[in-house]
Amino acid sequence: MQKLIIGIDLGGSSCKVGLVNREGQLLHFLVKPTPVDEGYTHVLSLFQQMTEQLLQEAGNSWDEIAGIGVGVPAILNLEKGDIVEAVNLKWKHVPFREDLERLWQVPVRVDNDSNVAALGEMWTGAGKGVSHLLCLTIGTGVGSGVIINGQIYHGANASAGEIGHMQVREEGGRPCNCGRSGCLETEVSATAILSDALEQVQGLDTGILREEYLRTGCLTAKSVIQYAQKGDPTSLAILERVGILLGKTLARMCYLLNPQLIVIGGGVSNAGDALFKPLNQAFRTAEMPRVFENTTIVKAQLGNQAGMIGAAWLIHDLIP
Amino acid sequence: MQKLIIGIDLGGSSCKVGLVNREGQLLHFLVKPTPVDEGYTHVLSLFQQMTEQLLQEAGNSWDEIAGIGVGVPAILNLEKGDIVEAVNLKWKHVPFREDLERLWQVPVRVDNDSNVAALGEMWTGAGKGVSHLLCLTIGTGVGSGVIINGQIYHGANASAGEIGHMQVREEGGRPCNCGRSGCLETEVSATAILSDALEQVQGLDTGILREEYLRTGCLTAKSVIQYAQKGDPTSLAILERVGILLGKTLARMCYLLNPQLIVIGGGVSNAGDALFKPLNQAFRTAEMPRVFENTTIVKAQLGNQAGMIGAAWLIHDLIP
Repeated sequence: MQKLIIGIDLGGSSCKVGLVNREGQLLHFLVKPTPVDEGYTHVLSLFQQMTEQLLQEAGNSWDEIAGIGVGVPAILNLEKGDIVEAVNLKWKHVPFREDLERLWQVPVRVDNDSNVAALGEMWTGAGKGVSHLLCLTIGTGVGSGVIINGQIYHGANASAGEIGHMQVREEGGRPCNCGRSGCLETEVSATAILSDALEQVQGLDTGILREEYLRTGCLTAKSVIQYAQKGDPTSLAILERVGILLGKTLARMCYLLNPQLIVIGGGVSNAGDALFKPLNQAFRTAEMPRVFENTTIVKAQLGNQAGMIGAAWLIHDLIP
Repeated sequence: MQKLIIGIDLGGSSCKVGLVNREGQLLHFLVKPTPVDEGYTHVLSLFQQMTEQLLQEAGNSWDEIAGIGVGVPAILNLEKGDIVEAVNLKWKHVPFREDLERLWQVPVRVDNDSNVAALGEMWTGAGKGVSHLLCLTIGTGVGSGVIINGQIYHGANASAGEIGHMQVREEGGRPCNCGRSGCLETEVSATAILSDALEQVQGLDTGILREEYLRTGCLTAKSVIQYAQKGDPTSLAILERVGILLGKTLARMCYLLNPQLIVIGGGVSNAGDALFKPLNQAFRTAEMPRVFENTTIVKAQLGNQAGMIGAAWLIHDLIP
């Protein structure tokens, strides 16, 4: 009786393997570091070991598994399930799905990490019941998944939603590793918040951010977010700039996509009102009333579990 | 034997009624001025009169008509086929599809003008055989239709693709009737080209544009396009600015949508290389190689017939 799914969220730093039921509930999961330097075959061995351990700990058997969905930070050839390139994993041109189906002898489906996060939020998170939604993940980088009619929209060659290098600042943007400057990733990510904070503390005489910097010799985006929540004006101003730029950018996207919902996840989304207030205001100012009245912007709900749940969603139609 | 479709393209200035076969060929058509000032019921009477005349002239009968598709410059409630608002026609809240089905006693489907133009190009024009495409119409205003999996994508409340008021210039943009400035419509439309030309001729001592302006007392976007094709440097510079801005804007859209094809129609698309060369170069510069290598930008092929053919497409699945 195949009533369960294994959802895997493979990242550059950790590998998460979860057991999910037909309702999208995460029943049990394991997390281990990704052995990036050991290479591709080591990751496959880890997959095998972790899935066995998962089933053993949960008290389930392979007979109950309808299939395995995998989210991976990669450019994919979706038809074949091949990985074209996974920069953070240092993989190029590997027959991923084929290898995994040989390994497990159950159906395997793969998609990229931003897309499975979006599917997770659609299935049981902030986007539950919504057909047309845009789900951004804002952490070190910026990714998104475009959901249309309840399905991930992949585009011409699986690049739809890869918004990290969309230019959002014409003048004075930070240089990006893509060779341009002012990309969404250099302006609103955790990396952008950190850069801004480091620039700010140089020019300050006092303040909690500068104190931390002088005490510890470093800063993180997380500390900026925490200080903002405590009311630190410098941290609030940094997040306000991010919120305004993100709000304007989302407005531009909505002229094209008119989604019902925009879900924002990733570490930066933890900033709460310090981010969402200026964001929402900039969005409303830049968008037609007809659209902003019909588009809600919310924080993601599933946190680090979105990837596993969304990866499992790739298999949900195989459960009888 | 229902083997034919009537496709209607209702605009603010003209009403086009065409007879289309199951392959999307336009067999016969009529064009008359839209009686905007006479109001809604006069337009319905015109529809009735023109469809009768069309069938008579073509030698066909109502028995052969599978249905009627209508494109209309309006915000629609698609579920009911009601018009929420059609500014140029001065209509608000009319039960459009219901009235038309009562009038004709055949199935009627409606969509907005930009969407049916996109469907026409997809069916028999520049987008033939393409599943994911973006089709822009750039004339007095700017509209677009987003086609995904061979269907128009409407979004949360039928506003998807309404890109005219997307802000594309942060600083120094022209004021727009939406209350903001630097909208796509104020920067790349025929209206924008004309505004730019009028500004240019004030500062010029010589040149073909200035000569026409002094001789006739006016200028048109069409004359700018014609002079550019003859090599006039002022006209070329105007279209280059439009091309660059449009190329950058399309690049931003493609980060989200990754279409196979972008089709550009409307009067401004007649500018040829003077527009498309700078446009393509700006697009390639602003876009990831992976996307620009897979996205082609072409001129629309169906001209003023796209609307009738695309409106007919709304009915194509009703032909046995």
